[in-house]
Amino acid sequence: MSGFTLHGYFRSSASFRVRIALNLKGVAYDQAPVHLVRDGGEQLQAAFRALNPDALVPALTCDDGSVLTQSLAIIEYLEERYPTPALLPGLAADRAFVRAAALQIACEIHPLDNLRVLKYLKQELGASEAQKDAWYSHWIHLGFASLEARLASDSRVGSFVFGDAPTLADICLVPQVWNARRFAIPLSDYPTIVRIADHAMQHDAFAAADPARQPDAST
Amino acid sequence: MSGFTLHGYFRSSASFRVRIALNLKGVAYDQAPVHLVRDGGEQLQAAFRALNPDALVPALTCDDGSVLTQSLAIIEYLEERYPTPALLPGLAADRAFVRAAALQIACEIHPLDNLRVLKYLKQELGASEAQKDAWYSHWIHLGFASLEARLASDSRVGSFVFGDAPTLADICLVPQVWNARRFAIPLSDYPTIVRIADHAMQHDAFAAADPARQPDAST
Repeated sequence: MSGFTLHGYFRSSASFRVRIALNLKGVAYDQAPVHLVRDGGEQLQAAFRALNPDALVPALTCDDGSVLTQSLAIIEYLEERYPTPALLPGLAADRAFVRAAALQIACEIHPLDNLRVLKYLKQELGASEAQKDAWYSHWIHLGFASLEARLASDSRVGSFVFGDAPTLADICLVPQVWNARRFAIPLSDYPTIVRIADHAMQHDAFAAADPARQPDAST
Repeated sequence: MSGFTLHGYFRSSASFRVRIALNLKGVAYDQAPVHLVRDGGEQLQAAFRALNPDALVPALTCDDGSVLTQSLAIIEYLEERYPTPALLPGLAADRAFVRAAALQIACEIHPLDNLRVLKYLKQELGASEAQKDAWYSHWIHLGFASLEARLASDSRVGSFVFGDAPTLADICLVPQVWNARRFAIPLSDYPTIVRIADHAMQHDAFAAADPARQPDAST
């Protein structure tokens, strides 16, 4: 027992983010998979709701028994408890740049392409498969276009979003690119985003967090 | 000239958040209103895109000429530059609690009820007014129900979300409640949320950030 248990799902972007952060910090953790599809979604059942009333993954059970939720709050917590290696730069203005890139994904793209949103589109609004795919693709393209514009023009960008070491921004970027590829979204208009994501996946901490390598991975 | 200029819109929740934070920190700022509806949306025009390629408000122009985006990144920046009064508690676990409550609104509710999302529902998916209203209401109720469960059961909650002083969580909560009321969403199932939001609005920093009191306010 490491003291930390991640309640997540292999394909969940937000779980993927927390796995990367834990790996970067070198913090050992157990995994308690929550299957988002099987049996109508294990996250909606009483056992998981007792842990997290939001019925969302990930949740992180800590060594002191507390339960943390919301991936970005969990990662900021890890950053404060385990400052090295830093996942945010030293200067406030640079930290704001990194956090803004992370939030641009976490607030502007990911919430719209969440499983429960896609379900609502189909079940409540009667959207067709094609309309659901167009919706998914629309928010990825809108978000990636502006993020690409930002990254392509900012001198702070290096092999990672900020310089040559991974930060919170890469932690959010990589799962979003992984997701876009899963749905076969063409990414040729976003060369900076793709270059950074591919470079990051060569890093052990990112590679070990790959959905395909998790204990609950399936097709 | 204060050195800070907030490019926002009176009714935008994310702009409202940043106004509250600036007021709480006692940081003077000018306002440069960006009308989100007039002329098809000033945020979509070249002048604003040059400032923020995301075409989203708010953006904060700083005293050093840099442009910050994403409301939560801006508020964390203000917190780092002007630590007093603190908008986050001292302990990492408590900071995670406050950030999670903030993100539950900023990631799970607000992005789905954004202007551009409601537009997409109508224009691309042919949603009726009633379907659009049901969508809006659905994400408010889903998010508020779990947030209420969390706040009603956590001993850290006081007259504000964390104890008896405002934090980042209240800064996100108040605009979301304001928005829900604007659309006449019944809030009787969320007594803790309503109690905190009403208490916060008695605080000068929150009251001065009220959309109705901004220079660009209109009906």
